[in-house]
Amino acid sequence: MEQFSGVSVVKKANVYFEGKVTSRTVFLADGSKVTLGIMLPGTYEFGTDSREIMEILSGDLSVLLPGEETWLEIKGEGTFHVPAQSKFKLEVRSVTDYCCSYPA
Amino acid sequence: MEQFSGVSVVKKANVYFEGKVTSRTVFLADGSKVTLGIMLPGTYEFGTDSREIMEILSGDLSVLLPGEETWLEIKGEGTFHVPAQSKFKLEVRSVTDYCCSYPA
Repeated sequence: MEQFSGVSVVKKANVYFEGKVTSRTVFLADGSKVTLGIMLPGTYEFGTDSREIMEILSGDLSVLLPGEETWLEIKGEGTFHVPAQSKFKLEVRSVTDYCCSYPA
Repeated sequence: MEQFSGVSVVKKANVYFEGKVTSRTVFLADGSKVTLGIMLPGTYEFGTDSREIMEILSGDLSVLLPGEETWLEIKGEGTFHVPAQSKFKLEVRSVTDYCCSYPA
């Protein structure tokens, strides 16, 4: 059972798309941040401020990264990178558990 | 922005009711556990193992506690206690953010 230890967790959730996408913010010991989230089935477009690494812990979804014409398919686990200041699209087909990190 | 500090967070989510109820498990510094969760609109029945204190951080829901005939109404914030080894019902009307603790 993988855990983040020695961290701080913001009590209140982050809620997007009427609760179909939600996350909790975790501050790691080194000061960096991750968000642990859930996405329910649906089609979403997200914008990034900083660079993001999206680790899919479980799920079934398609991802259209900025500048790409081909959707990336993830069933089960997977990871993709999103540039800063960009937009990406997701088609989520089943409940998807994720960990998003924001490398400097 | 209230936080739990010096804690461990389990990376994977707990998923119930096809993702309409999800939570993350947080182990506090004293060894006790809380779960930070989201409930989407719906009607749910939950069973407890140990005693639970449910703190509603935001939401709109009705709660039927064991042995009660009157539903408790919560709009916004609220807290209720559930005995060990019991069942309770929830009617969730809007996205509900909660913190559940399990006192010894």
